[in-house]
Amino acid sequence: MLKAQDNEDLTRVGPGTIMGDYLRRFWTPILEASELPGPDCDPAEVRILGENLVAFRDSAGQLGLLQALCPHRQAPLFYGRNEEGGLRCIYHGWKFDITGRILDLPNEPPDSPVKNTIRAKSYPVREWGGVVWAYLGPADKQPEIPQLEWGTLPPSGRQIIKYVQRCNWVQALEGDIDSSHVSFLHTKLDPKGNRVGYNQQSVGYVMRDKHPKIEVVPTDYGLMIGARRDAEEDSYYWRISQWLLPYYTLIGGDLDGKLGFGEMYVPIDDTHTMVWCPRWSAGGPFTEEQRRRNIEGPDAAVRTLDPVTGELRASKANHFLQDRLLQRNYSFSGILGVREQDTAVAEGMGAIVDRTQEHLVQGDAAIVAMRRTLLGNARALRDGEEPPAAAQGSLYRVRAWSAILPRTTVSFTQDPKMPVRLALADA
Amino acid sequence: MLKAQDNEDLTRVGPGTIMGDYLRRFWTPILEASELPGPDCDPAEVRILGENLVAFRDSAGQLGLLQALCPHRQAPLFYGRNEEGGLRCIYHGWKFDITGRILDLPNEPPDSPVKNTIRAKSYPVREWGGVVWAYLGPADKQPEIPQLEWGTLPPSGRQIIKYVQRCNWVQALEGDIDSSHVSFLHTKLDPKGNRVGYNQQSVGYVMRDKHPKIEVVPTDYGLMIGARRDAEEDSYYWRISQWLLPYYTLIGGDLDGKLGFGEMYVPIDDTHTMVWCPRWSAGGPFTEEQRRRNIEGPDAAVRTLDPVTGELRASKANHFLQDRLLQRNYSFSGILGVREQDTAVAEGMGAIVDRTQEHLVQGDAAIVAMRRTLLGNARALRDGEEPPAAAQGSLYRVRAWSAILPRTTVSFTQDPKMPVRLALADA
Amino acid sequence: MLKAQDNEDLTRVGPGTIMGDYLRRFWTPILEASELPGPDCDPAEVRILGENLVAFRDSAGQLGLLQALCPHRQAPLFYGRNEEGGLRCIYHGWKFDITGRILDLPNEPPDSPVKNTIRAKSYPVREWGGVVWAYLGPADKQPEIPQLEWGTLPPSGRQIIKYVQRCNWVQALEGDIDSSHVSFLHTKLDPKGNRVGYNQQSVGYVMRDKHPKIEVVPTDYGLMIGARRDAEEDSYYWRISQWLLPYYTLIGGDLDGKLGFGEMYVPIDDTHTMVWCPRWSAGGPFTEEQRRRNIEGPDAAVRTLDPVTGELRASKANHFLQDRLLQRNYSFSGILGVREQDTAVAEGMGAIVDRTQEHLVQGDAAIVAMRRTLLGNARALRDGEEPPAAAQGSLYRVRAWSAILPRTTVSFTQDPKMPVRLALADA
Repeated sequence: MLKAQDNEDLTRVGPGTIMGDYLRRFWTPILEASELPGPDCDPAEVRILGENLVAFRDSAGQLGLLQALCPHRQAPLFYGRNEEGGLRCIYHGWKFDITGRILDLPNEPPDSPVKNTIRAKSYPVREWGGVVWAYLGPADKQPEIPQLEWGTLPPSGRQIIKYVQRCNWVQALEGDIDSSHVSFLHTKLDPKGNRVGYNQQSVGYVMRDKHPKIEVVPTDYGLMIGARRDAEEDSYYWRISQWLLPYYTLIGGDLDGKLGFGEMYVPIDDTHTMVWCPRWSAGGPFTEEQRRRNIEGPDAAVRTLDPVTGELRASKANHFLQDRLLQRNYSFSGILGVREQDTAVAEGMGAIVDRTQEHLVQGDAAIVAMRRTLLGNARALRDGEEPPAAAQGSLYRVRAWSAILPRTTVSFTQDPKMPVRLALADA
Repeated sequence: MLKAQDNEDLTRVGPGTIMGDYLRRFWTPILEASELPGPDCDPAEVRILGENLVAFRDSAGQLGLLQALCPHRQAPLFYGRNEEGGLRCIYHGWKFDITGRILDLPNEPPDSPVKNTIRAKSYPVREWGGVVWAYLGPADKQPEIPQLEWGTLPPSGRQIIKYVQRCNWVQALEGDIDSSHVSFLHTKLDPKGNRVGYNQQSVGYVMRDKHPKIEVVPTDYGLMIGARRDAEEDSYYWRISQWLLPYYTLIGGDLDGKLGFGEMYVPIDDTHTMVWCPRWSAGGPFTEEQRRRNIEGPDAAVRTLDPVTGELRASKANHFLQDRLLQRNYSFSGILGVREQDTAVAEGMGAIVDRTQEHLVQGDAAIVAMRRTLLGNARALRDGEEPPAAAQGSLYRVRAWSAILPRTTVSFTQDPKMPVRLALADA
Repeated sequence: MLKAQDNEDLTRVGPGTIMGDYLRRFWTPILEASELPGPDCDPAEVRILGENLVAFRDSAGQLGLLQALCPHRQAPLFYGRNEEGGLRCIYHGWKFDITGRILDLPNEPPDSPVKNTIRAKSYPVREWGGVVWAYLGPADKQPEIPQLEWGTLPPSGRQIIKYVQRCNWVQALEGDIDSSHVSFLHTKLDPKGNRVGYNQQSVGYVMRDKHPKIEVVPTDYGLMIGARRDAEEDSYYWRISQWLLPYYTLIGGDLDGKLGFGEMYVPIDDTHTMVWCPRWSAGGPFTEEQRRRNIEGPDAAVRTLDPVTGELRASKANHFLQDRLLQRNYSFSGILGVREQDTAVAEGMGAIVDRTQEHLVQGDAAIVAMRRTLLGNARALRDGEEPPAAAQGSLYRVRAWSAILPRTTVSFTQDPKMPVRLALADA
């Protein structure tokens, strides 16, 4: 439960809000690199942190990110011609390079001084790990790009899906660091009506112990979150996930740990979130079957498009195609698709969930810690303290993990092998 | 004509408004009983008086009405599993009984004290007359369910249609107690261009005398409204309708008086109204033909669904399919369907009609009296006076009537048989 | 660039705004005369300057424009019956003549005094030049209808297309008096990638000299705007356009000057504009081919309707069907249709462009002068000074022109023939 003002401070991302200022101290994922495929390609509309922008790649292949509307008379630069080193507005032919500098001002006399006094607002952009990143903060505070594992792998070993969630980014993020909901929302029922999970290997433990003990360990980059469940008589099953500032997650998956997954909950604005779902294979290229399942998930049918509107068929308006018969006989939620299940819950809370109405329990310990960290960091920045995690990309070289540990190991941090498991070797 | 503040006070229904508080002292129709068909059936979304709720029936068939979002982290309970005595949230498996008490809290340890300290907000619900009723007011002020005639009849003798009107409830209601518009909006033209009504028996009087004298008699339950028209040389034709607090109507119909009809204008929120149209036959079961006409009305074609959107074809956006040729030759309005005609007018006034712009006349006497009663009662409650009508269900055992009375009977209340006609015998 | 308050004052048109008051001192085009085809025809919904109204023609063919909602209880008069001298409300049969006077009040007794005390608000309406005009200002300040050339021609020599632009009227208007954008937005590319204009005759000059020198001459009716481009070694190519108060334009076209065109940017409300496109031929009737091109423009395909929605296919939502391959090889904008190009830019600026973000240059001289004139006149009226242009219809008897003048003629006003070219002979 939060006070109303805390909920405002936590969730709002526009320019001038305290969380908006804080988020602007990080590199922000804005597009897949393939959406700007090459030199002089078509520009792309970008809306991020409540700002409207246009991204493009110049003739040398360099990335640029400019204000959406031409500084002259506010025509949309998205319609512009991308040609010979810059983006040219279709209204009067003004042409900008990737830094927002005017290259050509053809509707003014050649000797016009205006060329050097007007600039389009621009932001630094980089490509890394198949993703286009932008930095929307103060020029002298530019941090490093977070060195998340998937970004260091060759394209054959990574895959990214993304989609829009029509709600605030924090409630979307909260679902991902909430280990206890896995025993419910994402489970299926066997023919006898008992719950079974999507994750076949460890499903027995998750289904048997539905109230995991949550251990939250603060780190330089965010939080390590251990969910401890009874395994065998003398052992615990641990799922250790990571929350990395400000909106990255790494989810503890199967016991073999060869496949990685997590999410990035990037605010489009206060009430829309771009959910990025990177999937990666540290042990070598994905197989074709793995690639297909990364996209479709275990419930392929739900991802079909409506033939009339061209939109995803599952949405809040149609109750995410919830099937009550399915719910009685096969699926705890009656909704097909793990992401659809999470989205049904997150959007169902309203555009920005009213946290004054909550009642939190022990299982929400990680969520409490995350909110406290975000609010604390945003307020520290407001009071003049720079966020350290933003500056150091190497802090993000960590993993999630799952493990069976003896019951004598009360905290997962006591396990001697855990530091090796959770940290990536130097690249 | 009302002052702007009076119009606000009259129309707003959310929690904390004076009319919202007043309406909450009555049982409110929320669903047809058939929408919650049996034990452990699918839950139903309810929006009423500006509040979002979820209704369900437990394994014993008992009705429950809970807050829409789980008190834990605000996941939508509508998606919940209805099973073994309660509704279980799909997010973390919290399970609530019909009173909002937690039956199971599986993501917490079994000894968690939280189970007894957290409750979902719930409202009392009852089934009566084929309708599910809820009480949203203070627990110690619970009134009786209004004993309207149709609710006391067997299902074979009653039928209910309902639909949503996209405007405030008061302007929707006003149309129903406005006898003089019947001579216009709902009439048809004969081949010579003269108006004829839907009601064949008394149509001659209604068409000849288009400015009825309105007699309004205040009662314990609301208003008796007599509309007096010239009949023969020595007689008047009286239509006596009822307005019952807060939004019920009984409409004086044919002279034989065997079929009853009326409406209930239940506020979904300030700008949407659920219009319930009960139809009943006090003299025995409806015939098949009567049942069909209750649904379709005299203009069946208009109630078809758009094959692409699945919505009713007639709407404000398409001018309720008004046909100008039809209007010139056959129908006063050019709009097919009595309810469509009323809806075209009510929605056409705007979401909440601006009553500061009105100019009322003698024919609006019932509307003036109704507004005064509603505002007076709401303000009385604000000042500490309980509404009596809400408490006594038996007050609602009245009827509407139509009658031919001698001209010597200046007021319908002078007719000696009228008390018998307008009051139902004790059940 | 404008201050925020100036931008508000410039753009807002509702009752009580300073620009709204100013615009109400002019006759306003509201419908094509053909939309009210004859006596007792169907009424038409009108929304203009933020006011909802209903227009009709009575049995004598006289035009009327009334408040949209009946003064009685606010039923929509648009559904009304247009019959025997007036418009009759479908709710209670009240009937109004074109001045808003009540002709019949059938739901009141015949001796009711109300008939003479209640009126529907009405505005004067006239038909001229195939257009229905309304006057929404104070009764004692009624001006003359602007005697624009097309309005004085027989129907065989004029044609009008109109469509809705989803943005404020001023930014729509600004595109029309902006000669320099023609060298860009509306050009096509020849096979070698060089730009060519739609206007074949003078295209060479417009394409070669892309930064015209703008000469702005204030007049009694608005502005004469000369755009001077280098033609041959000893000559200039002049395009002389007109802006006439408050939202009319005449565009300098081909050198032969036989065909006239211009626009009228009539505010529906603050964020919607009815764009009227009159086209006329002063030298005689249009040919069939000219008529077809007036409607379709040079890119006919774009004006097709979506078979499912029935709306124009090109819109902001689909980026005006911009084709990037077309943009690279054939069209500067990649958008088909001159009006679609202008609309893409105007709507792309946002509902009301934020002029605090602009950076104006020499080429924007006419726009600066126009804004200054509009704001100055609106503020003068607020301070008690009547707008002269509104009163004198004959001031509007002017033309646009294109001409080749010797370089010795520095200003187009020095050319001795110009007064003849720009003024229409007395009618």
